[in-house]
Amino acid sequence: MSNLEDILLTSPKATYKSYQKGDLIQRAGDLNTVPIYVKQGLLRSYLIDSKGKEHIYMFAPEGWIIGDIEAMEYHQPAALYVECLEASEVILFEKDCLFKASLSKDQILENKQLLLRRIGRLQRRVLMLMGTPAIDRYQYFIKTYPELPNRVPQHMIASFLGIAPQTLSTIRSQIARNG
Amino acid sequence: MSNLEDILLTSPKATYKSYQKGDLIQRAGDLNTVPIYVKQGLLRSYLIDSKGKEHIYMFAPEGWIIGDIEAMEYHQPAALYVECLEASEVILFEKDCLFKASLSKDQILENKQLLLRRIGRLQRRVLMLMGTPAIDRYQYFIKTYPELPNRVPQHMIASFLGIAPQTLSTIRSQIARNG
Repeated sequence: MSNLEDILLTSPKATYKSYQKGDLIQRAGDLNTVPIYVKQGLLRSYLIDSKGKEHIYMFAPEGWIIGDIEAMEYHQPAALYVECLEASEVILFEKDCLFKASLSKDQILENKQLLLRRIGRLQRRVLMLMGTPAIDRYQYFIKTYPELPNRVPQHMIASFLGIAPQTLSTIRSQIARNG
Repeated sequence: MSNLEDILLTSPKATYKSYQKGDLIQRAGDLNTVPIYVKQGLLRSYLIDSKGKEHIYMFAPEGWIIGDIEAMEYHQPAALYVECLEASEVILFEKDCLFKASLSKDQILENKQLLLRRIGRLQRRVLMLMGTPAIDRYQYFIKTYPELPNRVPQHMIASFLGIAPQTLSTIRSQIARNG
């Protein structure tokens, strides 16, 4: 059991849940959503835009935390759906438990690093969506999620990268040829 | 003086600096960059892509913190340039001072909220780049940075929004007509 999981479980409100593949844990419009720690399985969060098109915000395999932080911090209804791509075991928790007074200063510093690293990854994601060639986006995806290329359908990886599915197949065959 | 500024100034390594309009505080490739608190003025950070095109990552008016968090957290050279759009007074600081042991638990919780809100804004920025109509992007820009539309050149606002400058003028005249 990870250190992080230990902390979540000291919180009286933390709840274990099991889901089947395809289950929706959260829908756009939901109120008072909470962060979700993935103990086992694979989740994704996505937005449906005004034209009905899906855009994948992130994937969360084992050990990741997923949720709608904007909705939580600004007390808004969720914009994101959260769906299980595999049968999953998760812990729903209260976000403040990562910084509560009973934790040691060291533990708080460690949890602070989780947030800073998430900011760093989001920075990279914004910069990639703005100005990075598709092949570099895919290579960063593999680095961030080394175990996912074989667990996630291709069209979802393309959606996450903000590229057309055809572009993704071209890149993958390019990499296979060269590597 | 804000509470945040007080905390930065208790750090022995915090440094005041004054810059002129057009000065570069940080360049892509710089090592060991630090976060920058804007006391007065206006900064922007941007990436230059492999084709030489600029993409604006963020603006930082008074009270904001700007820097290359990915580079800091993952000990990489900076990817971002930071430039002064106006004559600016800033404080360069060590990121850990926001969470150091001498702070009260309340202060740490407050600084943690800064990070969570930054994550929330970045989430919105990713979702906007992926699937939000240009007019909604501009309206979110005005809400996030109410004082900036008259302080920042139009082509930079368009770059931040990931839209063509012509699209931005169309949107602005649309809003002026309707409202």
